[in-house]
Amino acid sequence: MTDHPALDDLRSLLGADHVLIGADTQRFEKDWTGKWRAQPLAVVRPATTREVSECVQLAARHCLAVVPVGGNTGLVGGTANVGALMISLERMNRIREIRPAARLAIVEAGVILSDLHAAADDQDLVFPLTFGARGSAQIGGVLSTNAGGSNVVRYGSTRGLCLGLEVVLADGRVLDLMSELHKDNSGFDLRDLFIGAEGTLGLITAAILRLSPKPKHHATALLAVAGVPAALDLLNRLQLASEGAVEAFEYMPRSYMEALAEHRPDLKQPLGIHDHTVMLELGGLSRNPTPQVEDILSGAIERGEVLDATVAQSETQRKMVWEMREAAAEITFTRLPIVDNDICLPVDRVADFIAEMEARLTHLDEGAGNLIVAHLGDGNVHLTLYPTSDDPDHLDRLREMVEDVTVGLGGSISAEHGIGLSKLATMRRRKDPIALDVMRAIKNALDPDNRMNPGKVVPPERDQSASN
Amino acid sequence: MTDHPALDDLRSLLGADHVLIGADTQRFEKDWTGKWRAQPLAVVRPATTREVSECVQLAARHCLAVVPVGGNTGLVGGTANVGALMISLERMNRIREIRPAARLAIVEAGVILSDLHAAADDQDLVFPLTFGARGSAQIGGVLSTNAGGSNVVRYGSTRGLCLGLEVVLADGRVLDLMSELHKDNSGFDLRDLFIGAEGTLGLITAAILRLSPKPKHHATALLAVAGVPAALDLLNRLQLASEGAVEAFEYMPRSYMEALAEHRPDLKQPLGIHDHTVMLELGGLSRNPTPQVEDILSGAIERGEVLDATVAQSETQRKMVWEMREAAAEITFTRLPIVDNDICLPVDRVADFIAEMEARLTHLDEGAGNLIVAHLGDGNVHLTLYPTSDDPDHLDRLREMVEDVTVGLGGSISAEHGIGLSKLATMRRRKDPIALDVMRAIKNALDPDNRMNPGKVVPPERDQSASN
Repeated sequence: MTDHPALDDLRSLLGADHVLIGADTQRFEKDWTGKWRAQPLAVVRPATTREVSECVQLAARHCLAVVPVGGNTGLVGGTANVGALMISLERMNRIREIRPAARLAIVEAGVILSDLHAAADDQDLVFPLTFGARGSAQIGGVLSTNAGGSNVVRYGSTRGLCLGLEVVLADGRVLDLMSELHKDNSGFDLRDLFIGAEGTLGLITAAILRLSPKPKHHATALLAVAGVPAALDLLNRLQLASEGAVEAFEYMPRSYMEALAEHRPDLKQPLGIHDHTVMLELGGLSRNPTPQVEDILSGAIERGEVLDATVAQSETQRKMVWEMREAAAEITFTRLPIVDNDICLPVDRVADFIAEMEARLTHLDEGAGNLIVAHLGDGNVHLTLYPTSDDPDHLDRLREMVEDVTVGLGGSISAEHGIGLSKLATMRRRKDPIALDVMRAIKNALDPDNRMNPGKVVPPERDQSASN
Repeated sequence: MTDHPALDDLRSLLGADHVLIGADTQRFEKDWTGKWRAQPLAVVRPATTREVSECVQLAARHCLAVVPVGGNTGLVGGTANVGALMISLERMNRIREIRPAARLAIVEAGVILSDLHAAADDQDLVFPLTFGARGSAQIGGVLSTNAGGSNVVRYGSTRGLCLGLEVVLADGRVLDLMSELHKDNSGFDLRDLFIGAEGTLGLITAAILRLSPKPKHHATALLAVAGVPAALDLLNRLQLASEGAVEAFEYMPRSYMEALAEHRPDLKQPLGIHDHTVMLELGGLSRNPTPQVEDILSGAIERGEVLDATVAQSETQRKMVWEMREAAAEITFTRLPIVDNDICLPVDRVADFIAEMEARLTHLDEGAGNLIVAHLGDGNVHLTLYPTSDDPDHLDRLREMVEDVTVGLGGSISAEHGIGLSKLATMRRRKDPIALDVMRAIKNALDPDNRMNPGKVVPPERDQSASN
């Protein structure tokens, strides 16, 4: 495989140091979950958009699939592809410009999310998108998966934070959508088509991102609540009283707090373990929201909607509360087999979902465990099942059960992690077949040779002669 | 033309009352500006998505172009097409459901914007998108043009307010994207592709729209400011102090206030006519922002950034201030010939744009007038030129001048009105040719026979043998 004729061409183009093969590709061939593994032909590390373009053209000449890879923190097998030319953006890690007056950042796709956070902070601004893997995740991956996270309730997903994009197309041409503008109705919305397309329509090399003023004050609290409806009622009260300043509203049921106690005994649980725990944060640009939060919590405690609560009194306490929430990824993948789900529900159906899912789970696999952590403010539930058997049919039955309950309540089978390889069967089963046809038509129009991260996101049409 | 064989088929399908021909089509064949006029074959008025689908299939069999028409309030010739089958959505005007707890509305495409405003208001909610033509504009048109308006600074354009869509495709199939969810990463973002596509990719028949809590308090003010930079400084102060509660921030220079005095003498100008006037509004969910606004205005007056100001003391005064702004469309089209522009600039370049444009205008046409009104909070400038000659070459020179200045400052040649027919030459001249190619590929993939509102938005590829 190391003799593939493309390799010499790639070395001439980028220098041998930036064409990784064999053992040097190890950190790219396995994803963070460990569930997906595939040996690429090579991993190349271009330094400029022009070099990316030339790599893509070279891949075309050699009939190679092209797979972009960022911080490799995805959870759905979005980069696994045997024999592909993997393009790492890690050298394209320049923050080209931060314009505080215009509140925007112009960045290359390889910028690490936490580096952008730090650079924005230096200007008294925030790039509000955040999640546990921010120290590794790169902007290109964040954009390609339309990443969500904990602050979507206030600031929206990645799509809402991106003003402009630069994309290398399947034929190597560079599409310039680097608009800085807040209104731009000049033709079809190509930007949002590439965001969330997981590299299947083109390769994102740079972006213009919106920044927001940095909240001067935070109110961060951990609460035991009477249940999900009480939590949602509290969320609405907080939103109205604070003019929409709720930055995070995260739900952690007993199963989560127990797993946290087991795997992260270093994190003291100040309220003990309750059936329903919420962590919340409000951000204030000019006002400290803490007195308001305390006032609303007092009322909720009087009404029995909140059972106990603690408001962080220092930055250290605030960080500890956040760490309890952000340990989720680490806690989730401590056991195998797992069936992991990233679903979204109408906000007012989350409680119904949990009840129905648990009843059906008991019926299908009495000994199975489950772990839930939810961005309750936007209806996004991360649900992990721990079945008692790893029989593939059993795992698939459980997956279908979760899909049934989700779709039955008007939910989506993918909220923020994307499709990759892991949700392809689900996409085929649950997505409107006409929507899949339209996606295939667009994929074929933009990548007729199916070379851009092939096999991801959109399941192929069924072979007419096959039985299922 | 009334003998066209499609007409009998359409009458069988919809009933003769809903197949308008000849004189009955008059209210559809001319747009609001009066600049665009085209006689369709017929205007049909289906009552259901299924009937729309059947009309589109019927059009395919008869090789007719399909042009959707809403409230006919567009400004860019988006519906002009000789001999087309026009599909009016006016009978599909049901608000199917408003779900206050989930803060969403499920509506048919023919719902009039102001009717949705009223229905949301009944539930103590708002659909925040608004503009002067709200009493006629229909949701389908609002979506198809990704309409903007005065409240984008707080709530975003139409795209940000739409959760789900139903679309009839070129082959008559119905695409179901009616998601209620705030996170939904299940494949390519088809929703945002149809929003703003002006009916060229499919025909929007229904939508799920986000509603917001209704502000309980407003602070609405009219100010004379020292200039655009002072206005922007004031905007930032207001945003920080109010936690982002600025709902509108509209700029009207002397030319606008003079035109207002001439054409709407009924609207008293409480501050007299100044070089730079701003109208602003803040909305408070639980707090009255008025004292804060008055406080910030006092400081700005002391610093000389604001020269004079009046804060509305009643709902009547508030409405009068709004009327001064919303008379814009009516004032604009009082003279001919005009060169109307709807451009967007980086917010901090608006002042540069005006200065440079006026200098070049004087050079090209010393006697020409100009009228500006701007959504300053998002950089969107509506600029109308009144040239001294209607020679087409002269008009085009002026148009190119505006484009040159706009693009030179990093702006877009279309902000919120769309492309239609009126900006096709501009699209060809100013849009990245690779972006145009990608748009053509998508159009061809979704509408291979080019029957959905043909000739709009994306200019055709140049004939290779033609000279320009």
